[in-house]
Amino acid sequence: MNSFYRVQSEYLTELTSLILQKNGVIAQEADVTAKSLVDADLRGVSSHGVIRMSNYLSRLKKGVTTAKPKIEIVKETESTAVIDGDYGLGQVVSQRAVEILSEKATKANLAAVTVRRSNHFGAAAYWAMQLLDKDMIGIALSNVEPLMTPPGGAGARVGNNPLAIAVPAGKSTPIVIDMATSVVALGKILAAKSKGQTIPEGWGVDKTGLPTTNPDDVVNGGFLYPVGGPKGYGLAVAVDVLTSLLSKGAIGKEIGSMYNDLEHHNDLSHFFMAIRIDAFLEPQVFKDSVDRYIEFIKNTPLAVNTEQIYLPGEIEHLTKMKNLQEGIMLPASVADELELFASEAGIEAGYLQELKKHQS
Amino acid sequence: MNSFYRVQSEYLTELTSLILQKNGVIAQEADVTAKSLVDADLRGVSSHGVIRMSNYLSRLKKGVTTAKPKIEIVKETESTAVIDGDYGLGQVVSQRAVEILSEKATKANLAAVTVRRSNHFGAAAYWAMQLLDKDMIGIALSNVEPLMTPPGGAGARVGNNPLAIAVPAGKSTPIVIDMATSVVALGKILAAKSKGQTIPEGWGVDKTGLPTTNPDDVVNGGFLYPVGGPKGYGLAVAVDVLTSLLSKGAIGKEIGSMYNDLEHHNDLSHFFMAIRIDAFLEPQVFKDSVDRYIEFIKNTPLAVNTEQIYLPGEIEHLTKMKNLQEGIMLPASVADELELFASEAGIEAGYLQELKKHQS
Repeated sequence: MNSFYRVQSEYLTELTSLILQKNGVIAQEADVTAKSLVDADLRGVSSHGVIRMSNYLSRLKKGVTTAKPKIEIVKETESTAVIDGDYGLGQVVSQRAVEILSEKATKANLAAVTVRRSNHFGAAAYWAMQLLDKDMIGIALSNVEPLMTPPGGAGARVGNNPLAIAVPAGKSTPIVIDMATSVVALGKILAAKSKGQTIPEGWGVDKTGLPTTNPDDVVNGGFLYPVGGPKGYGLAVAVDVLTSLLSKGAIGKEIGSMYNDLEHHNDLSHFFMAIRIDAFLEPQVFKDSVDRYIEFIKNTPLAVNTEQIYLPGEIEHLTKMKNLQEGIMLPASVADELELFASEAGIEAGYLQELKKHQS
Repeated sequence: MNSFYRVQSEYLTELTSLILQKNGVIAQEADVTAKSLVDADLRGVSSHGVIRMSNYLSRLKKGVTTAKPKIEIVKETESTAVIDGDYGLGQVVSQRAVEILSEKATKANLAAVTVRRSNHFGAAAYWAMQLLDKDMIGIALSNVEPLMTPPGGAGARVGNNPLAIAVPAGKSTPIVIDMATSVVALGKILAAKSKGQTIPEGWGVDKTGLPTTNPDDVVNGGFLYPVGGPKGYGLAVAVDVLTSLLSKGAIGKEIGSMYNDLEHHNDLSHFFMAIRIDAFLEPQVFKDSVDRYIEFIKNTPLAVNTEQIYLPGEIEHLTKMKNLQEGIMLPASVADELELFASEAGIEAGYLQELKKHQS
């Protein structure tokens, strides 16, 4: 039932890219997408890993995701750009956006790029982290379809829009914050449902807006709830403003449903920002301060049953280091899917043997 | 016991400014500070209103807040600046910072200013909102002394650092998000304690890091808890990075305690950012989209017992409109304090009669 395969990340990236290429994506752009997905699997954020391929491929086949998008800069200044993603894969559009961002920030010290007509871009952290080795602080935001109700409401009005910020450190692991603005992701509620468990009050509300501990009530017409009520709601609104409102992208019900409507564009918008550290102070001085700050936090007295205090992104980094060595624990169900997509795409059976070699 | 006075905001601003002036603050800077405090009272955010004067004055008298600060730009580029606040009143320093920010954003489209060696700047929203009439999106962040424990810990390591973002609208009220990164402010826990009430689990932990419903456990050696656990913790860390780490300001225990240590500088850091909307699209097009977005959210189906859905900042705006007409409901205890400070400062008794004219 719950079997896994240990798959080396290089192989998984190659295979994922090959499948995308067989579905019309050009090699370089397929590589970009595969790397982003596999990086999420490496970091233990498997909800944003190759499990998403099924949806990506369905959308490519339907033509609601553009396999070979013409990504265009609609408007730009020295420090800003608005990009039209032509409904390309979110990763393909985001990679281009972050390259433009990085060039602009190099010259202007600060830069911000908004993106419209894109798709799911994987984990937000992946894009914020692209700026780390340039001694910049990176910020990445995306809207998603309305899934949460505002407090006091009983209607999907704002996405559980993710936001990420990545901060270079010295000797320490970079600080990487990546969070959705709901209490939990829908996936956790679906998991409770499939196990017949209740959920803690506060994770979601039923279709009348009342709190519930029954996952069915959330899944059947209910809504995700913003983290901290008005606070998560406010953050989600801020992300909507900076992504879709500042790019003239789709808002509200103009946004398609990633999983419930494969006939229309998902039509997501993103916002990326880069802050060049040396505009403020010597990068090495900054990084030393970050290290000192991290040390202060790591030395927090521990509550009972706690073994260690982690900085944001630290667990994901440690998981990645481990998975790079040992391989990614890929659920059999996801391996089965990839095998099917690969066979459909005419990828050789011999090449596929690697996928399921190490069961664990 | 719980009596209030209805005080006109113009009078309250004048009186507050006069008291500051009598304590060594120059007129223009006293006005800036008074306006920020009274604006919070107008908006119903009385925790950040003139109730803070007691602390501000104690600090001015002790000399740990500089009455006539020499605010300096330590480093700058076209789009960025690092400002040393010389331990001036937070509002005085922030007003200067926002003016520099606004000038830079006007030329460079994006600007960011970090501030070190400052003090409590009142409500974060007040500074973000300064950019609204310039057709810019404003962002204001501040660190505060460590008050929260990271999840799993039992030590104060991060402040419940506030963040605010203000977004211009068309016909609608601007969207103004302003939130601390703890579940609740310490004030709410103190209020429960004084009424002998329990607090909901999650608001804070005791000195061993365990969740508690007894406000005494939080107040006596316990800690505030981040909103959403790792999420609020991550946001608080992000604010620390952008404020104190990017300005080379005080971090961790270098930050003084605003209320528990009047012998040392509070030593807070801020971060302000402005985004010029016309770098991305026509401001009128943006504002129309914001109005449309607001309408979509206002039309959320209502949960039982809800009369209306509010956008972030809307209730504060409505409260301000009402209080501008009717006067601010100033608790008698705060009016007593102001009366005392005014008498001490030699302000004429005749002028003070206005303060307590309308009891309600």
